[in-house]
Amino acid sequence: MSERSGRRKSRGRDAKHADRKRNQMEVAAFIDRKIPYFDYLSTESLELIEHNADTVLEEIGIDFRDDPEALSLLKDAGADVEGERVRFPRGMCRSIIQASAPKEFTQFARNTERNVIIGGDRTVLVPSYGSPFVRDLDGGRRYATINDFENFVKLAYMAPGLHHSGGTICEPVDLPVNKRHFDMIYSHIKYSDKPFMGSVTHPDRAQDTVDMAKLVFGDEFVENNCVCISLINANSPMTFDATMLGAAKVYARHNQATMISPFILAGAMSPVTVAGTATQILAEALAGMAFVQIVKPGAPVVFGTFASAISMQSGAPTFGTPEPSMVMYAVGALARRLGVPFRSGGGLTASKVPDAQAAYESANTLQAAAMSGVNFMLHTAGWLEGGLSMSYEKFIMDCDQANMLAVLLKGADMSENGQAMDALREIGPGSHFLGSAHTQANFKTAFYRSTVADNNSFEQWQADGELDCAQRANAQWKQMLNDYVAPELDPAIDEALLEFISKRKGSFPDKEY
Amino acid sequence: MSERSGRRKSRGRDAKHADRKRNQMEVAAFIDRKIPYFDYLSTESLELIEHNADTVLEEIGIDFRDDPEALSLLKDAGADVEGERVRFPRGMCRSIIQASAPKEFTQFARNTERNVIIGGDRTVLVPSYGSPFVRDLDGGRRYATINDFENFVKLAYMAPGLHHSGGTICEPVDLPVNKRHFDMIYSHIKYSDKPFMGSVTHPDRAQDTVDMAKLVFGDEFVENNCVCISLINANSPMTFDATMLGAAKVYARHNQATMISPFILAGAMSPVTVAGTATQILAEALAGMAFVQIVKPGAPVVFGTFASAISMQSGAPTFGTPEPSMVMYAVGALARRLGVPFRSGGGLTASKVPDAQAAYESANTLQAAAMSGVNFMLHTAGWLEGGLSMSYEKFIMDCDQANMLAVLLKGADMSENGQAMDALREIGPGSHFLGSAHTQANFKTAFYRSTVADNNSFEQWQADGELDCAQRANAQWKQMLNDYVAPELDPAIDEALLEFISKRKGSFPDKEY
Repeated sequence: MSERSGRRKSRGRDAKHADRKRNQMEVAAFIDRKIPYFDYLSTESLELIEHNADTVLEEIGIDFRDDPEALSLLKDAGADVEGERVRFPRGMCRSIIQASAPKEFTQFARNTERNVIIGGDRTVLVPSYGSPFVRDLDGGRRYATINDFENFVKLAYMAPGLHHSGGTICEPVDLPVNKRHFDMIYSHIKYSDKPFMGSVTHPDRAQDTVDMAKLVFGDEFVENNCVCISLINANSPMTFDATMLGAAKVYARHNQATMISPFILAGAMSPVTVAGTATQILAEALAGMAFVQIVKPGAPVVFGTFASAISMQSGAPTFGTPEPSMVMYAVGALARRLGVPFRSGGGLTASKVPDAQAAYESANTLQAAAMSGVNFMLHTAGWLEGGLSMSYEKFIMDCDQANMLAVLLKGADMSENGQAMDALREIGPGSHFLGSAHTQANFKTAFYRSTVADNNSFEQWQADGELDCAQRANAQWKQMLNDYVAPELDPAIDEALLEFISKRKGSFPDKEY
Repeated sequence: MSERSGRRKSRGRDAKHADRKRNQMEVAAFIDRKIPYFDYLSTESLELIEHNADTVLEEIGIDFRDDPEALSLLKDAGADVEGERVRFPRGMCRSIIQASAPKEFTQFARNTERNVIIGGDRTVLVPSYGSPFVRDLDGGRRYATINDFENFVKLAYMAPGLHHSGGTICEPVDLPVNKRHFDMIYSHIKYSDKPFMGSVTHPDRAQDTVDMAKLVFGDEFVENNCVCISLINANSPMTFDATMLGAAKVYARHNQATMISPFILAGAMSPVTVAGTATQILAEALAGMAFVQIVKPGAPVVFGTFASAISMQSGAPTFGTPEPSMVMYAVGALARRLGVPFRSGGGLTASKVPDAQAAYESANTLQAAAMSGVNFMLHTAGWLEGGLSMSYEKFIMDCDQANMLAVLLKGADMSENGQAMDALREIGPGSHFLGSAHTQANFKTAFYRSTVADNNSFEQWQADGELDCAQRANAQWKQMLNDYVAPELDPAIDEALLEFISKRKGSFPDKEY
């Protein structure tokens, strides 16, 4: 009897807990932006950058390296090809892109409720990408493993503010370089039902990604719908290499999305100014996106940008400073003018630990990304050390920021309830609103509740052990991994994936590069 | 000989150090904004809030408490006075304000190079205000003293990103409540030459502020020019008390600036919605600013706002969440539509320590403040614990953010040098820009250099002792206080101030309230 009532009591607590969580935020597949974009640059300035980018494409040109097929395709499309240097008549890239690239597209997830729309007024928040190390408060910094990778897939699956499972969240360096993509793709499919990113480190690995996706979604569906999106970095300045071009061709030919992303540490890979950097980014992205449309007209393609500045003393990349934000504002507007989705932003920082530097830099970047209209926000959660480390605690803290971006982008409620004139009339001067009918009706959803901030009194905070934000986050990710329940996966699909992986892995020797 | 060469070497280092500092940022008396404002709300939404605020003023009214003179002045000006409740015909407050309140004004500093323009496209960054406690990494949290107060005046004087000395940066609780204002005003004048804020805790203390300012600037100058600015909080909801009204009258009659600031923890002192809160803020500020203009037409007055949300669970104030940013965006636009300067923003946080929570929350607020067009940004540097603590380390970190706001608000350089087409032509595909002539010509001023971020390699960071941001800031404020050199002050003025203070302090007993 006492056991039963105990259980009932505990269920009550759980229900209350779940209720609190539900009330805290609407879980949406992506963010539907209801606020304007911030026009940091004037139309005149944007037109000047577009003009200059066309000059770069026409006079300087872009190198397409070690890919004769690419050169031949570009030549046939009207570019001026001289060795590996490709020059484009003014406006050529823009008109190729505008003729066939979709303004927005749906990336399907294996759980269709998790499908995301990429482009237009939508924002999709995505975990960080590419760290060889992981860090947590307990173990410090260490090389990432497939276990870490799985952990982050699980955490991203559980995070209401993240809409996507991401790609190479961290490098599972305990697995051979030429085979780890199988395990990463499998993890995304097995441990999450959110959409995911494909492998780009070799055209064969891109093909493996597509083949595995076909086992989940079916051959025909994949050929006609976007089920994965992949990161094609330009080798800035003004160069695309064969690996990236090869992967881009595989994905485009299967109608899968690519993000053509100039990767810029401004001052080293681009001029040491905002306008010069934006010009180069636009030129590179125009060339890359036009190439994708030449390979497969209509294949989804995203205007990507990763731009930080370097310290002109040490050459080290810096984050969260004003100039990269300016570049992001500029490029966001350029992407909208071109009419393609825009990828940039995230919780970027050079800090080695999840401290105040990490947070200032990340928040500055996240705010600018939201205001500038990023559609696909890679690196939203987890980044440390300029991407060298994926931090468990920072992942939790950034997810809290991701939740907040969703609220900010939704805009203010101007309904009658939002105007609250009844509350103002009921309370009047000198009283307080805590007990008003309007407050009672709205308090559950009224204000965003942070998952990691401590807003208690100083005395309560002391009694709770004087924890800082990272320490609170530490407890949270452990609790989440403990609570994790895998989304259902058809056992036949699971078996087919494992069989495919086993066969493919057995067909060639391990390699460490 | 070796001593001399040693000295020469040290001078060389110093010169280099100074050169580095100079290159880092232009030291300006205030920020001249060159970028647009972010229009978070539509014109239609703003008009609706204005309409509703007029309804509040007309139907509900504002209480002016314990000040018969205020009620009489308001009645004479056309308001409907019933007891202490004052109702205003639609549009009355707006037309009174627009008839005489300056759109912008100069606050003079004793060093005229430090004069600030408040309003229009200008931004003035100001230290935090009002903390009873201070905190540093060495001593933890303790009650503030006049020594702490002097320290923060010195640090604000030395901080290139702060344009103002502020007011009650922290409460010198070691001094009697009814006399500490003398010591605070004296500190601002003695240890800094930036403009400062006046006392508002009693009309007599406001008068003391004016009298001390006259000893510095001269009687006639003070009566005709703004030499101090003071914070007049509304006792929200919809109430002004006699202390604030009394101080406002003193300052207005001497032509000194006041900031009429609804102080809102939304959900407690205002409705639990953004639009409702903005409506109440506008109504309160309109009534307060109109009152100032009735007392002295033409006296400089600022539309102030302090709005945070409360946790609907604990009642504790929260910061850096989306809703207060939305309120700030709304009110900034409302102030511009009204045509008066706007005070809000700052590095606000509920965190007890200068950790990631403190930084996320502060950066979110600072970014929104910059984008929303805050003209006078009180609480820019130092805030912890919802204002209960002034942190030495956070002060340093926030000052770094202040420097960045100046860069962000300046906009992107679109000159020929900014466009960098020569650099793009010189370098071309596949090379790097580090050695280009353009980079060499621009690298010193190209990118903002953080004063507290660590952008070094992981290995270098380890070798440097694995410090976090707060630890680096700790070393910095100590170095700054060590390096502090007081600005010159005419000994006759200094003597007059000390004599005035001694006489006034001797004329009444100490009080602890």
